[in-house]
Amino acid sequence: MHKGRLEAFSDGVLAIILTIMVLELKVPKGADFEALKELLPIFISYILSFIYIGIYWNNHHHMLSTVKEVNGSILWANLHLLFWLSLVPFVTGWIGENNFASTTMALYGFILLMAAIAYFILQQTIIKKEGEASVLAKAVGKDMKGKASPIIYLVAIPMAFVSSWISGALYVLVALIWLIPDKRIERSLKK
Amino acid sequence: MHKGRLEAFSDGVLAIILTIMVLELKVPKGADFEALKELLPIFISYILSFIYIGIYWNNHHHMLSTVKEVNGSILWANLHLLFWLSLVPFVTGWIGENNFASTTMALYGFILLMAAIAYFILQQTIIKKEGEASVLAKAVGKDMKGKASPIIYLVAIPMAFVSSWISGALYVLVALIWLIPDKRIERSLKK
Amino acid sequence: MHKGRLEAFSDGVLAIILTIMVLELKVPKGADFEALKELLPIFISYILSFIYIGIYWNNHHHMLSTVKEVNGSILWANLHLLFWLSLVPFVTGWIGENNFASTTMALYGFILLMAAIAYFILQQTIIKKEGEASVLAKAVGKDMKGKASPIIYLVAIPMAFVSSWISGALYVLVALIWLIPDKRIERSLKK
Amino acid sequence: MHKGRLEAFSDGVLAIILTIMVLELKVPKGADFEALKELLPIFISYILSFIYIGIYWNNHHHMLSTVKEVNGSILWANLHLLFWLSLVPFVTGWIGENNFASTTMALYGFILLMAAIAYFILQQTIIKKEGEASVLAKAVGKDMKGKASPIIYLVAIPMAFVSSWISGALYVLVALIWLIPDKRIERSLKK
Repeated sequence: MHKGRLEAFSDGVLAIILTIMVLELKVPKGADFEALKELLPIFISYILSFIYIGIYWNNHHHMLSTVKEVNGSILWANLHLLFWLSLVPFVTGWIGENNFASTTMALYGFILLMAAIAYFILQQTIIKKEGEASVLAKAVGKDMKGKASPIIYLVAIPMAFVSSWISGALYVLVALIWLIPDKRIERSLKK
Repeated sequence: MHKGRLEAFSDGVLAIILTIMVLELKVPKGADFEALKELLPIFISYILSFIYIGIYWNNHHHMLSTVKEVNGSILWANLHLLFWLSLVPFVTGWIGENNFASTTMALYGFILLMAAIAYFILQQTIIKKEGEASVLAKAVGKDMKGKASPIIYLVAIPMAFVSSWISGALYVLVALIWLIPDKRIERSLKK
Repeated sequence: MHKGRLEAFSDGVLAIILTIMVLELKVPKGADFEALKELLPIFISYILSFIYIGIYWNNHHHMLSTVKEVNGSILWANLHLLFWLSLVPFVTGWIGENNFASTTMALYGFILLMAAIAYFILQQTIIKKEGEASVLAKAVGKDMKGKASPIIYLVAIPMAFVSSWISGALYVLVALIWLIPDKRIERSLKK
Repeated sequence: MHKGRLEAFSDGVLAIILTIMVLELKVPKGADFEALKELLPIFISYILSFIYIGIYWNNHHHMLSTVKEVNGSILWANLHLLFWLSLVPFVTGWIGENNFASTTMALYGFILLMAAIAYFILQQTIIKKEGEASVLAKAVGKDMKGKASPIIYLVAIPMAFVSSWISGALYVLVALIWLIPDKRIERSLKK
């Protein structure tokens, strides 16, 4: 089976996830800057989640570019990833509307953790099909980023109950780690 | 006519159906786990419907991969399927918000039944065009899954008025039957 | 310029228009059939508009299949069509929530009329670029359907103030006329 | 990396932005023209933003048509542009619901300014990759439009506090400047 529709469907779902998050930014009643100020936490949570979805789209794009064909397992591993990402707008709204309260920040981290695990499963499913000698397997290598992220999330989740700021800083840290596009795959593809 | 736009349009509609279902999961007022608990039935209904839409996308993907060209009848049979699937977010919200009440569970089954019939019509329309010797016709064969599903729905709908649990279990059963990707088509394509 | 992105973008917009209409079908408070009954006019208006958007997608698909390249004028004529179609969910909700009141039915017809005119402009813009000897120009020919539809709308709009039923019947009539896929283009393409 | 998915993803996001703006046009309670009148400012703001998003899609289409491959920097420059455009539905709703109040009009201009800057960054990122001898670099040339727009926005933003009409007129002016499709690229491509 060709990978074209898998990419198109994932692009569609990710594009919608990205855009419905902005619906949380409800038009305020007032017409002055005062009215905007109340939206600030929602706006900040929107920026963070926008970057996260952008990173996932970016890495998904890189990862799939190494694949030639897909099978049923890859389709379902991909849907599993989209499931967890589809919950991002919900938790984004939750942290934003509650001013980053501890419980909400912990759940935010939990959804990110599940998405990271789902991404890892998808990656392994593709490598299993493509073989250990494939471009992806070589590109991923020791996969430091992929291993570090869940560990940071696992620290950030309980930390949310100590301080929302610490767990927030850890989520930003993971985003920064990934913001640098996955040169590994670009490099492997060139060889 | 090329099948490209039929696939792209269906991907778009299915991606949006999948994603607007999550809008039913409204951000709760409270910021603790207590507030989340109330969302549990809606979350469960979301998972079930997410899997159903995933199955339809998956099978649609498999089915269309055997087709070369489409005609007017196929376009309309496809739109007919999308119509019934577009009602899934509505019934998903209805069962979730009413804690799986009998009437809501019956309607959920009715929409699934109509979608199954629409899928069957689409399949037959394609076979009619491609011929009895086509990949799809051979792959479908006796079509045990396609025939069992509507029968299970027809049992589940009245059962909803006896017990929501029984009809719910039957909907999960059908999902499990289909969750196994349609190896028949993959096998036929390889030959 | 290649037509690929014009098709993809139009597919995206039409898919979203189709799907957000279902959001008007708000999940009712009650969990019985009584609660559903109140949604009946909204459901009927949804079916009618779903068919209309389906017809537009279908014909758009047929029309673009004859085109090889697009220019700036075609891009804007296409956006103009999408603008009027983007208002269909709004008027669909309006007629549904007001039980097909006269004024709402007249506006529904007006939006359909403007969409029909926009479609005609797009068609002429393409023919102008492709030339009078093009597949589309031959296929369209005397364009009976394209000329009859606006005339019927022009009758249906004032008729809404006499009886909503008459204007509703006229909208259904136009849908039926178009429901038959545009065999003209399929035939011309084959030659 | 191939540019296909970048285009598809951008098309998806822009299509959704375009279409969710119409959700601001909430179905009014009344069923007469009186009820519609109140929606007039929202409708006008919808038309203006529809044209702006149309222009961005159009120019994005033209610009990408000159590109062969994309890299990580282009992907992120593109996401940055989509971020600012994703805020257009929010500010469109804000100006519409507040009858074009000064502060809302200033913010509208600010978002347009940021989108223009993001577009410029994307353009430069592509030129940097493609080289000064590329089709795009030649087509852009002195880039009068691209330089005039931010200057007009910078005038329009403070002007909003003098008169909403003046800043509104300036936003319309920029739209008119761009409405003329970018013949420069079409011309360069032909050579």
